Amino acid sequence: MPESLFSEVVPEPAEEVFTTLLEKPGLKIERIASHGHVSPAGFWYDQEQEEWVLLVQGEAVLQVDGQPDLRLKAGDHLRIPAHLRHRVASVSDDALWLAVHF
Amino acid sequence: MPESLFSEVVPEPAEEVFTTLLEKPGLKIERIASHGHVSPAGFWYDQEQEEWVLLVQGEAVLQVDGQPDLRLKAGDHLRIPAHLRHRVASVSDDALWLAVHF
Repeated sequence: MPESLFSEVVPEPAEEVFTTLLEKPGLKIERIASHGHVSPAGFWYDQEQEEWVLLVQGEAVLQVDGQPDLRLKAGDHLRIPAHLRHRVASVSDDALWLAVHF
Repeated sequence: MPESLFSEVVPEPAEEVFTTLLEKPGLKIERIASHGHVSPAGFWYDQEQEEWVLLVQGEAVLQVDGQPDLRLKAGDHLRIPAHLRHRVASVSDDALWLAVHF
């Protein structure tokens, strides 16, 4: 049976909610509900694995090391190479991401 | 730079449009715009690889071999094991899928 990406696990979460939708060796598909929470000041993601990320709903500003800010709207997707430092500078309350780590 | 899942390559396509968003050995992320086109009568997908599929936008009815019809709405996602026969019985004009083959 299908599950819904839009169903909320927690009604009013105090932080971002990460839900693993599928996990296999070398592959993880993850749902991220931001609830307006940005990356902590000075925090950068620096990931071992490459990532493909889609903003399914909402808006966000992504900072990528050494690049101008990326303003994302629903439907925007991009590939983030392993160890490319990045952080979420701002994000709407309803922001919903799909991340594929591989 | 990000690309948008919602941008159309072809204005009024006569059939489904498949766009590969990312491809690596053992992994393909694909955008599928259905434009109301169902699987041909008697046609079943029978795939070598496992698939995870998300209906990003629209509505669809998926037939999976030996199971009751699955009515999908935007946000619904499911995993389809390799060689599990399936077909799209009906689909809205605006249906947009994200498929991860692995």
